[in-house]
Amino acid sequence: MSEVSVLGLGNMGSALARVLLANGRQLTIWNREPTRATPLIGMGAVLAPNAAAAVMASPVIIVCVTNYAASHSILTEAAANLPGKVLIQCTTGTPQDARASEAWAHENGAEYIDCAITGSPSSIGTPDAHILLAGQESVFRKTEPLLRTLADNLDYKGESIGLASTWEMIYIMHYYGMFLSLFHSVQICQAEGIPLEQYSALLGKQGKNYEKWLCENILSGNYQETSAPLELWAGGIQHIVEHAEVSNIRAEFPRLTARLFQDAMDAGYGREEVSALFKVLQRPL
Amino acid sequence: MSEVSVLGLGNMGSALARVLLANGRQLTIWNREPTRATPLIGMGAVLAPNAAAAVMASPVIIVCVTNYAASHSILTEAAANLPGKVLIQCTTGTPQDARASEAWAHENGAEYIDCAITGSPSSIGTPDAHILLAGQESVFRKTEPLLRTLADNLDYKGESIGLASTWEMIYIMHYYGMFLSLFHSVQICQAEGIPLEQYSALLGKQGKNYEKWLCENILSGNYQETSAPLELWAGGIQHIVEHAEVSNIRAEFPRLTARLFQDAMDAGYGREEVSALFKVLQRPL
Repeated sequence: MSEVSVLGLGNMGSALARVLLANGRQLTIWNREPTRATPLIGMGAVLAPNAAAAVMASPVIIVCVTNYAASHSILTEAAANLPGKVLIQCTTGTPQDARASEAWAHENGAEYIDCAITGSPSSIGTPDAHILLAGQESVFRKTEPLLRTLADNLDYKGESIGLASTWEMIYIMHYYGMFLSLFHSVQICQAEGIPLEQYSALLGKQGKNYEKWLCENILSGNYQETSAPLELWAGGIQHIVEHAEVSNIRAEFPRLTARLFQDAMDAGYGREEVSALFKVLQRPL
Repeated sequence: MSEVSVLGLGNMGSALARVLLANGRQLTIWNREPTRATPLIGMGAVLAPNAAAAVMASPVIIVCVTNYAASHSILTEAAANLPGKVLIQCTTGTPQDARASEAWAHENGAEYIDCAITGSPSSIGTPDAHILLAGQESVFRKTEPLLRTLADNLDYKGESIGLASTWEMIYIMHYYGMFLSLFHSVQICQAEGIPLEQYSALLGKQGKNYEKWLCENILSGNYQETSAPLELWAGGIQHIVEHAEVSNIRAEFPRLTARLFQDAMDAGYGREEVSALFKVLQRPL
C-alpha cells in the first residue's frame, strides 16, 4: 500500500510525482506509455501495471492527463477500485467537465477535488507554485497536507466544483489579449521599419518583462520552449471557447484567438514557445 | 500678430489652447463651431473669423481636429496663407496620413511636425502629459520651447514623419487586448456566478488599477466618461486597421476589435467610458 498514486506522467504529472517523492511520500505511478515512469522508479516510485492497480494501491489518487476524455477512459478501467478513494483531478478542462467528472466520481463511490495548476511544471514545490482548488471542504481539508507539499499557495475557491477551472480561465484569459496586442505591435514595427530592439526596450522600461522576453524570441528567431509549450495555450483558449459556447455568452474574441492558435498548431509549432504564434500572424493574408 | 494659432477646439484642442494661454502665449483660435471658443476668449484668446485668418495670424499653427480629412479641408481653405508657417499636426491618424499631410504642407510652403498625444486632455501641461513627435529635427528644435509648455515629456522619434503615429499605435495597441480579455473574464464570472467584486479584488491585488476601475464601472452600471470617450478608442483601432490594410499585414485581431467598438458606437455608447464596450459584448449572440 502506498500513500498516493499519480495517474498520468506528462510534464505536469511527472513534476507532481517528483515533488511528492522528494517529500518522502510512498508513491505508485502509472502512465499509458510506461517509459515515462523510468526516472521516477529510480527515485523510489512503484510502477503499477495498469490504472486499476494504481487506483487500488493508494487512498489518494491524483489524475493529471491530457484532457477529461482521457481521464474518463482511464478511470472507467479502474472504476471497480474507486469506492472509498479520494480523486484529485488535476487535468485541465472546463467547469462543465469538472461538474460531470465530480458527479461520475460520486456515483462510483469516490470523493472528489478539482485542481487547476496555474504555473509551470518547474514551479511545483517552489514558492511560485499556485494551485486553485474546488470541492467539498471536508475532502479538501483531508488532502490539504499532501497538496501543501506541491504548492504552499493552495487557493481553495469553495465547494462548487467548477470554481477551480473557472478561476483558471480568468487567470489565463488576460494573456491571450496581451499576446495578440503584442504581436500586432511587432508587425507595426516591422511594417514601419522600427527596429524591434526599440520596442523591446520600451517594454523593459514599462516593466513588462515577459512581453520583452517574447519579443526577444522573435528577434532571435529562437522559439524553443522554456516555460510552457504553445499547445498548452492552445488548449487553454479552446476550453474558454467551449465554456462560452455552453454558457451562451459572446465569444468572438476567444474564438478568433483559438483559431489563430490552431493555425500555429497546424503549422507544427505546438511544442515551441508561445511566441511561435507570431510566425503564423506575420504571414500576409 | 499672435504667437500661435490653434485650429480645432474639441476637448484636446481646447486643452492645448487653455494651457498655452495659462503660459502667457498670445493665442488666436478658430473652430468650425464658434461657441466652443467662448471660454477661451474669456481667457484672452482672439477668435479668428475663418481658418485662413487664423493661419495668417501666427507663425505657428497647431491643428487638432477630428481626422485628417477634416484637417485637409480646413487647411485647403487657408492654403494661400501657409508659406513660411510651421504646422504642428495634432490630429490623430495613420503614418500614411502623416506622410501625405507632410508632403502637402511642403508643397504649400509650410514646415511640418507630426504629434501624437498619448494622454487625456486633462493631462496637458501636467507631468503626465506625453507627446510623441516626428519631423525635421531643425523644425522640431524651433517649436520645442512652445511644445514644452504643453508636455515636459516630448518624445521626439525622428525625421521620418510617420513615426509619431506609429509609436502612438504601439502605445495604445496593448489596451485593446486588455479590454477584450478583461471583459471576457467578466462574462466568465457572470456565467459561473462569481461575484464581480471577487474578480475586481484580484485585479487590485495584482496592481491592475485601471482594469479594476473598468470592472467597477460594470459593477455600478455607471459608464459616464471621465478619462477618454469610447469613440476615441474606436477611432484608434480604426487607424490601426487602416494601417494594417495598406501595409498588407494580418489584421484579424484589430479588425474584430474595430468591429466590436463599431457595435458600441452604433449602440450609442460613443460618448461613454470605454467600459461601455462591455454592454455590447455581454449580449448573447
